Amino acid sequence: MTKWVYSFGGGHNEGRADMRNLLGGKGANLAEMAAIGLPVPPGFTITTELCTEYYRNERRYPDSLKAEMRAALARVEAAVGLGFGDKHKPLLVSVRSGARVSMPGMMDTVLNLGLNDATVEGLAEASGDARFAWDSYRRFIQMYGSVVLGVDHHRFEDIIEHVKLDAGVVEDTGLAASDWHRVVHGYKEMVAEETRKPFPMDPEEQLWGAIGAVFGSWMNPRANTYRRLHDIPADWGTAVNVQAMVFGNMGTDCATGVCFTRDPSTGENVFYGEYLVNAQGEDVVAGIRTPQPMAAARAKPGETPMEVAMPAAYRELMAVREKLERHYKDMQDIEFTVQRNKLYMLQTRNGKRTAAASLRIAVEMAGEGLIERREAVMRVNPSSLDQLLHPTLDPKAKRVVLSKGLPASPGAASGAVVFSADEAEMRAAKGEAVLLVRIETSPEDIHGMHAARGILTTRGGMTSHAAVVARGMGRPCVAGAGGISVDYGAQTLSANGVVLRAGDIITIDGSTGEVYAGAMKMIEPQLSGDFGTLMEWADQARRLKVRTNAETPLDAETARKFGAEGIGLCRTEHMFFDPARIGAVRQMILAKDEAGRRAALAKLLPFQREDFVSLFKIMEGLPVTIRLLDPPLHEFLPHGEAEMQEVADALGVDIAVIRARGEELSEANPMLGHRGCRLGVTYPEIYEMQARAIFEAAVEVAKTANAPVPEIMIPLVGTKKELDITRAQVEATAKAVFAETGKTIEYSVGTMIELPRAALTADQIAEAADFFSFGTNDLTQTTFGFSRDDVEARFIPIYIEMGILPQSPFDSVDAAGVGRLVRTAVEEGRKAKGKLEIGICGEHGGDPKSISFFAEAGLDYVSCSAFRVPVARLAAAHAAMAQKTNAVTT
Amino acid sequence: MTKWVYSFGGGHNEGRADMRNLLGGKGANLAEMAAIGLPVPPGFTITTELCTEYYRNERRYPDSLKAEMRAALARVEAAVGLGFGDKHKPLLVSVRSGARVSMPGMMDTVLNLGLNDATVEGLAEASGDARFAWDSYRRFIQMYGSVVLGVDHHRFEDIIEHVKLDAGVVEDTGLAASDWHRVVHGYKEMVAEETRKPFPMDPEEQLWGAIGAVFGSWMNPRANTYRRLHDIPADWGTAVNVQAMVFGNMGTDCATGVCFTRDPSTGENVFYGEYLVNAQGEDVVAGIRTPQPMAAARAKPGETPMEVAMPAAYRELMAVREKLERHYKDMQDIEFTVQRNKLYMLQTRNGKRTAAASLRIAVEMAGEGLIERREAVMRVNPSSLDQLLHPTLDPKAKRVVLSKGLPASPGAASGAVVFSADEAEMRAAKGEAVLLVRIETSPEDIHGMHAARGILTTRGGMTSHAAVVARGMGRPCVAGAGGISVDYGAQTLSANGVVLRAGDIITIDGSTGEVYAGAMKMIEPQLSGDFGTLMEWADQARRLKVRTNAETPLDAETARKFGAEGIGLCRTEHMFFDPARIGAVRQMILAKDEAGRRAALAKLLPFQREDFVSLFKIMEGLPVTIRLLDPPLHEFLPHGEAEMQEVADALGVDIAVIRARGEELSEANPMLGHRGCRLGVTYPEIYEMQARAIFEAAVEVAKTANAPVPEIMIPLVGTKKELDITRAQVEATAKAVFAETGKTIEYSVGTMIELPRAALTADQIAEAADFFSFGTNDLTQTTFGFSRDDVEARFIPIYIEMGILPQSPFDSVDAAGVGRLVRTAVEEGRKAKGKLEIGICGEHGGDPKSISFFAEAGLDYVSCSAFRVPVARLAAAHAAMAQKTNAVTT
Repeated sequence: MTKWVYSFGGGHNEGRADMRNLLGGKGANLAEMAAIGLPVPPGFTITTELCTEYYRNERRYPDSLKAEMRAALARVEAAVGLGFGDKHKPLLVSVRSGARVSMPGMMDTVLNLGLNDATVEGLAEASGDARFAWDSYRRFIQMYGSVVLGVDHHRFEDIIEHVKLDAGVVEDTGLAASDWHRVVHGYKEMVAEETRKPFPMDPEEQLWGAIGAVFGSWMNPRANTYRRLHDIPADWGTAVNVQAMVFGNMGTDCATGVCFTRDPSTGENVFYGEYLVNAQGEDVVAGIRTPQPMAAARAKPGETPMEVAMPAAYRELMAVREKLERHYKDMQDIEFTVQRNKLYMLQTRNGKRTAAASLRIAVEMAGEGLIERREAVMRVNPSSLDQLLHPTLDPKAKRVVLSKGLPASPGAASGAVVFSADEAEMRAAKGEAVLLVRIETSPEDIHGMHAARGILTTRGGMTSHAAVVARGMGRPCVAGAGGISVDYGAQTLSANGVVLRAGDIITIDGSTGEVYAGAMKMIEPQLSGDFGTLMEWADQARRLKVRTNAETPLDAETARKFGAEGIGLCRTEHMFFDPARIGAVRQMILAKDEAGRRAALAKLLPFQREDFVSLFKIMEGLPVTIRLLDPPLHEFLPHGEAEMQEVADALGVDIAVIRARGEELSEANPMLGHRGCRLGVTYPEIYEMQARAIFEAAVEVAKTANAPVPEIMIPLVGTKKELDITRAQVEATAKAVFAETGKTIEYSVGTMIELPRAALTADQIAEAADFFSFGTNDLTQTTFGFSRDDVEARFIPIYIEMGILPQSPFDSVDAAGVGRLVRTAVEEGRKAKGKLEIGICGEHGGDPKSISFFAEAGLDYVSCSAFRVPVARLAAAHAAMAQKTNAVTT
Repeated sequence: MTKWVYSFGGGHNEGRADMRNLLGGKGANLAEMAAIGLPVPPGFTITTELCTEYYRNERRYPDSLKAEMRAALARVEAAVGLGFGDKHKPLLVSVRSGARVSMPGMMDTVLNLGLNDATVEGLAEASGDARFAWDSYRRFIQMYGSVVLGVDHHRFEDIIEHVKLDAGVVEDTGLAASDWHRVVHGYKEMVAEETRKPFPMDPEEQLWGAIGAVFGSWMNPRANTYRRLHDIPADWGTAVNVQAMVFGNMGTDCATGVCFTRDPSTGENVFYGEYLVNAQGEDVVAGIRTPQPMAAARAKPGETPMEVAMPAAYRELMAVREKLERHYKDMQDIEFTVQRNKLYMLQTRNGKRTAAASLRIAVEMAGEGLIERREAVMRVNPSSLDQLLHPTLDPKAKRVVLSKGLPASPGAASGAVVFSADEAEMRAAKGEAVLLVRIETSPEDIHGMHAARGILTTRGGMTSHAAVVARGMGRPCVAGAGGISVDYGAQTLSANGVVLRAGDIITIDGSTGEVYAGAMKMIEPQLSGDFGTLMEWADQARRLKVRTNAETPLDAETARKFGAEGIGLCRTEHMFFDPARIGAVRQMILAKDEAGRRAALAKLLPFQREDFVSLFKIMEGLPVTIRLLDPPLHEFLPHGEAEMQEVADALGVDIAVIRARGEELSEANPMLGHRGCRLGVTYPEIYEMQARAIFEAAVEVAKTANAPVPEIMIPLVGTKKELDITRAQVEATAKAVFAETGKTIEYSVGTMIELPRAALTADQIAEAADFFSFGTNDLTQTTFGFSRDDVEARFIPIYIEMGILPQSPFDSVDAAGVGRLVRTAVEEGRKAKGKLEIGICGEHGGDPKSISFFAEAGLDYVSCSAFRVPVARLAAAHAAMAQKTNAVTT
C-alpha cells in the first residue's frame, strides 16, 4: 500500500533531503535537518503523490490517508506533550505547501491552526499571556479566512481599524487582549456572513480545509501559467507540511528570523540576515517594525544585533550554520524561531545569490575543502558571468521605463543623447559620457559607437549592424526600440509622449532592452581574483576550445585577455567599411569589367594585408580563421540620395550610374541571394586579392614572430564544387605568394556549414575541406525559414508567449531541427575525413545551453564575441562535466 | 588475353547489338545486321577497350593488336576476293569512329583507304572506269589529308578550282580522268609541303594513321567539352570500324541513300528517305545534287523515286526495312549503298523523331504486335509531350531573335504588342491576336493575360506572377527578358537597337525564352487518338496519382480533361486578388484590431464560399487540397503612389495610413518572413474565415452532388505546435458549421513540408497531420539558400555553365540535398503515422526526372499545373516501370 504521510522531528524521521520529488523541497529538508540533530518542531509531510492521486481520483482522498494522518498527528502530540483540540494544552500547527521547486501563485502558509473559542483559552493559560492568545487566534482566522475561505483581506483590516478607532489607539501594539477578543468576534461574524457558513471550530475540519486549499491552489490559474512558462509538469504535484507551531511572539525572550549562511550579495563568509524580537514570521516581512541584524560586526549604530540581544540562541544558531554548510555543502537560506530562548529551525534551502556571490562562495568553499574544485565550477552559472563583465543597473534604483527594444548587447550605460557619430566622438573627447542614438547605424558610425558609452537604435534586429558591432566592442546596446521615434532634424527622440532633446540624459540596459529617462545608479563590474581562479579550474575541466569572433586589433586583444585560444571568425568585410577603403570597394563594385575590378582591388590589397599583419601579431601563432567576403555587394553602396551624390562625385561618375548599379544589385531576398562563395565564384578576383593579403601578411609576420596558421574559410557553400573552385583559387594564390617571397607557411582551407544542403551533403564537402565551421545564424534562418531581421521582433515573441517556441532559436540552438543538421554534418564530415576540425562561429557560440549541445555533438571549438569568451569557457567546462556524468543536458 | 578486334560480315560475326559498350553503336549494329543475314560489307571493329588501353599506356597499342588486325583483314580479303594493297584487285576500306553514343567533335569517316599510285590503276582496271578510280583517289587524299593529317580543306578546294579553270569547266562532273589525275598530283605536292612529309603510299601505314586519328579525336577539346556537358566518362572510349568499301558512285546502276523506316516527323508507317544515283554518301549531304525520294507514293512531279528507278534494289530494301523493324522493334535510321544493282547495308540505328512521331510509332507498333504496350509507354519521352500540347515554332521558319528571357511557360505565340491588360482585352474582343507586354504583371492584369495569346515581361523570374499565372492558364510566357526595355508612356519596346511600337507583331517561344520580331509560322498542337490510347496505357502502369494545381474553374476543368485525379494545390490567395475582393482584403490588412479584421473578412466569406462551391462541383468528389493563406500581407497592398491614393480614397483613409502600413509590413527577406501559418497563428480570424468558406461550400455541394472531401493544408509549418494551433482552429470551425447546418462531411487537415525543419521533425509533425504535401519550391529555396527570384536569372546559369549544378534545382529536384530531406520526412512521417498520405505540389510535380525521384521515395501523388498533367501521368508510368525493373533512374 502506498505510504502517503512521512513524519519528521520528535525522533521519528521518515524522509531525507534526496526525497525532494516525493516530499517537496521544504518537507525533505525539514526531515533532513531533524535527522542530523537540528531542533526542528515535529510534524509530517503529505506526499506529492497524494496530490497527483487526488486529481486523478476526481479530487477525492484515498481511504487510507485519514488513518495515516491521525497516526502522524498522534506522534506530534506525543513529542510536544500537547493535544490537537485539547482545551488546556492545545497543539497548534502550521500548514504549508511545498512542491519540488518553489512556485509562486500557490497557497503558502496557514499558522496557528487548531485554535477555536475553546483552545484559545487553553493557549492563554499555557502561555500565561491572554493578549498573545487572542492575537494568535485573530491571526489564524485572518489567514485561514483569506487563503482557505477566499475572503478579501481588506474585510479583516477594516475590522481591526474599527476596533483601533474605538480603543483610541494608532498602533496594533496598543490593543489589549479584550480588543483582540472583539476583533475575533468581528472576524467570525464577517466570515460567516461572507461564506454563509460559520467559521469552522473543529480543528480537524480546519486541518482538512487547509490541506484541501493547498492542493486546490496547485491547479489555480496563476500556478498553471507559471508551470506552463517554466515547463513544470502538472503531475509533479505539491506536498503539504503540517508542523507543530513554535512562537517567536510569546515575549521578549522570543524572536524569529531569516538568514543566509553567507552574504548573498557579495559571497563574503559572514552570517547574514535579520531577526525581530517578539514577532511571528510575517512581521519580519510586513515592514512595520525594522528587523535587526544578526552579527554584531554588521550592526550599525542604534541597531541591536541578535549576537548581543540573545547571545545563547545566537551561539546555537552559529553552530547550526556551521553544521548546515558542512552537511549541505552550500550556502543556506534558513528560517528560525526562538521560543522562550529555545531555538527552532523552520526551513533550510540553498540560498539564492548574485553572480559575484556565487563565484566567491564557490571558490572559497573549494578553498575550505567543503567542495571539490569541479563542483565549484559547476556551481557558477555561465550566463551569470555577464553580470560580472558589464556594468549593471543597481536593482534598488527607481526606474522610469521610457520604452523597450531588443537586448542586443549586455550591460547598462547612462549618458547624454547624441544623434550623430561625429558629435559622439567630439563630446566624448571632452570627457562627456554620451549615448549614441540612431535610427540605424552603418559602418560610417563606428568611431561614434566607440566613443559612446552605449548605443540605442530604433530599427534593426539582434544581427543588425549596431547589435553585432556593439557586442564585439562590449558596448551595451538596445536595438530596434520601435516605440521610440527619432527626429534627426529636430534633434529629438520621443516615446510614450515624452520628448527628449540632444544632451538630455538617458540610461539603457542592454541585458533587458529597457530604456530609461535620466541617469541611473550603476554597479560597476569588478573582476576579483576568484574569477581568474574559477576560470583556471574551468579550463582544466573543459574539452571544447574557445575562440573569438574578432576583426579589429582591439577585439582580438580583449579576447586574448579573456582567454580566447584563437580567432574563430574574422569577418573580412568589416574591414571594407573603413572610410579609407570604402571608396576603393565601391569603385570595384561599379567597375564595368574584371580589369576595372582588379584595379580597385589592388588599392585594397595593402589595407587588407596590414589588417592581417596586426591580427597575426596579436594572436602569436594561435589559429586565425578568416572568412572571405560574405555579404552581397549592394551592402557597400550608399543608399541615401546625398550619399550617392557624394560617392558619384568622389568616383567621378554620374549619380545615375550609382543608382543603376544599386538597382541592378538589389534583391528581393538578399539573405538568399548573390553573396558568400557565390561572389567568390562569379568574381574570383575578390577572393584572390583577399587570399593574397592573407598569405603576404602571414609570410611577413613569420619572419619576426610565431608563424601564423591562417585557416581560410569559404562562406555559404552549398555544393562541393563551389568549394573545389574557390579552394583552387586560394591554393593558386598561396603558391604564387610563396614563389614570390621564397617562404612557405602552413595554412588550411575550410568552409562554413550554414546551409541545410551543406549539412546534408557534408560527406562530399568534407572531401574538399580541411575544416568545418557552423554558421548557426544562417543555418537557423534557412532551417526555420526565419529571416532574423524580420521575425525576431515581430512574431518570435508571440511564438514564445504561445509556447510554440521555448526561446528564440537565434538565442539558443534548436536541437531538434538545426541541431539535427549539425549532428548529421559532424557525423558524415568525420566519416569522410576522420580528422576534420569542426567549430561553430555563429552567435550560439556564446550561449551556454548551445555550448552544451555542441560539446555533446563532438565539436572541437566554439567561437564567440570577446566578452562572451569567459562565459563560453565556463559553459564548456559544465558541458564536459555533464557529459562525464552522463547527465547530458541537451 | 584480351581480344581487341571483332570481325563482322563475310559469314564471320563476332559481335552482337548488345555489345554496344565494347564495339560502339555502329560496330555492334553492323555485326547484328550481318548476323541476321542482311548484306553487310565485311569488316572488323577495334574495341573501345583498346582506346582506353591506348590512353592508359601513353598512346601505345598493345603488342597483340597488329596480329589480330592482320587476321581480321585477311578474312575481309578472303570474303571479297580482293587484296589490301594488291595492285590489280585492291581492297579498299572505310575507317569510321563509333562510340557508345554518337558524339559530335570526333573524327567521322575516311573512305577509299588503300588507294595509292599503284592500286589506283588496279581500281581503274577492275571497275573499267579510270575517271571513277582517279576521282576516288583524290577523294581519299582529300579526306585523309584533312581529317588525319590536319590540312585545311580550303587548300584542296583551291587545287580543284585551279584545274577546273584550266579545263574550262564549271562543274566537277565536267572533269575527265586526266583532270582528276592532275588534281591528285597537286594534292600530293601540297600535302607534302604542308606536312613536310610525302603523302603515305603504304596502305598499312594509311590504316594505322586513320586508326590513330580516330583515337586521337576522342580526346580533342570539342569532344572533351561535349563529354563534360553530357556527363560521358572519358574512359568509355571509342571503337574504330574498318570495312570493305562498296561504291554507290560506280555508274548509274549504283546509288546511295539515307532512310527512316517510318516518317520521323509524323510517325506514319511509310518508308521515308532520300537517295542519289551514282553518288557516295557525302554527296547526299553536300547538297549540290538534289536527293530523290524513296517511295513512289511520296514523289512529287519531276522527281524519280527509287521505287521506280531501281525497282529490284528497292524491293530488297523494303524487305530489309521489314526485317530490321521486326528485329530491332523500333523505327530505324539506315544508310545503304547500291553497287551495280547489289544492295549493301552500311548502318542502322534507332531513328530520332518528333514527339508526334514518337507517340504514333509507339502506339502503332504496339498495335502491330511488334512491342508490348508497356514498352510503347516507355518509348515516349514525357517531356516531349509539351510539343504536343502547345503550339510550337515551325523549325523551318526563319528567325530574327530580338532578345531572350526565361522560358516561363511553354508554347509559342505571335500577336500584336499591347502594353496594358485593358487594351489586350479590348483588342482581343475584336478578334485580334495580341501579346501582352509588361515590365511585370500583377493580379490586376489577369483579364488581359487571359485575352492575350502570350505574355512577355521584362522583369521577374520563373515564379513571378506572370510565370505562375501563365503556366496555370497554359499561355506561353517569356519572363524577365532584361534585354528588352519597355516605355509605357511612349508605347514602345526596344531591344538590340530595334524599337517596336504598340500594334507591331512579335513572336515569343515560351519553351526557349526567345523573343522574335514579326510573325512566325507555328505548328498547332493536334491531339490524336493515339495520345488518348497511350495515356490510358500509361495510367494502367503507374502507381503515383496525378493531381493538379488549380484555383479557377477553368484551370480545374482543363486539368480534368487532361486526366487530373484531384486538386493537389488550390492557392486561396489567388482568389483574393479579384477586383471585387481586393478592397475587402486591404480593409482587413489596414484594420486596427481584430474586430476590424473580422468585419472585412465577413465581406470576403461569400466570395470564398462561391469559389469552393464551383471547384467542388467540377471535381465531383475527387480530393481537393486547399492551402490556406500563404503570402505575406504586404503583397496585397498597392505599391505605386497613384494606386495607393486610389485605395485610400476607396477605403476613406488618408494615403499616409496606407503608406505607413505598407512600411510596417515591409520585410528585408519576405520569403523568410511573416507568412504562411505564421499569419494563421497571429491572425487566427483569417484561417477561420477560410475554413468556414470551405465547410459551408462542402456542405452545400454535398446536398446535390458527390460530397467533396476537402483536404485543408496549412502552409510553412516549422514546428508541430503551429500545426496543433491552426488545426484546432479549423476543427472548431468545422464543428460550428456542422452544428449550424446539421450536416457533417469528411475532411482532413494536413501540412506543407516546405521548410528543412519540417522535414527534420516530420515524426513530430505527422502526429498532428493527416497528410503531407511537399512544397519543393520553398524547400529548395531554403535548403540551398537560394531566393529563386534573385538567383534564377543571375547566377544559376553561370553555375550550370561551370558545372557546379547539373541543372537548376528549381527545374529538377536536387536528390542529394532537397531529396534527402524528402526521404527523411517520408520515412519519419510514415513511422509516426503509417497511413500518412504524402504528395508533392511544387513545380517539380510536373518534371519527369523529379517524378521518378518522388515515385521512388514512396509518395502517393504529384500535383502540377493543368498542362503538365499528361506529362506527369506518363512520367509516373515510366517511374513505376523503372522501379519494377530495378533500373531506378535517379
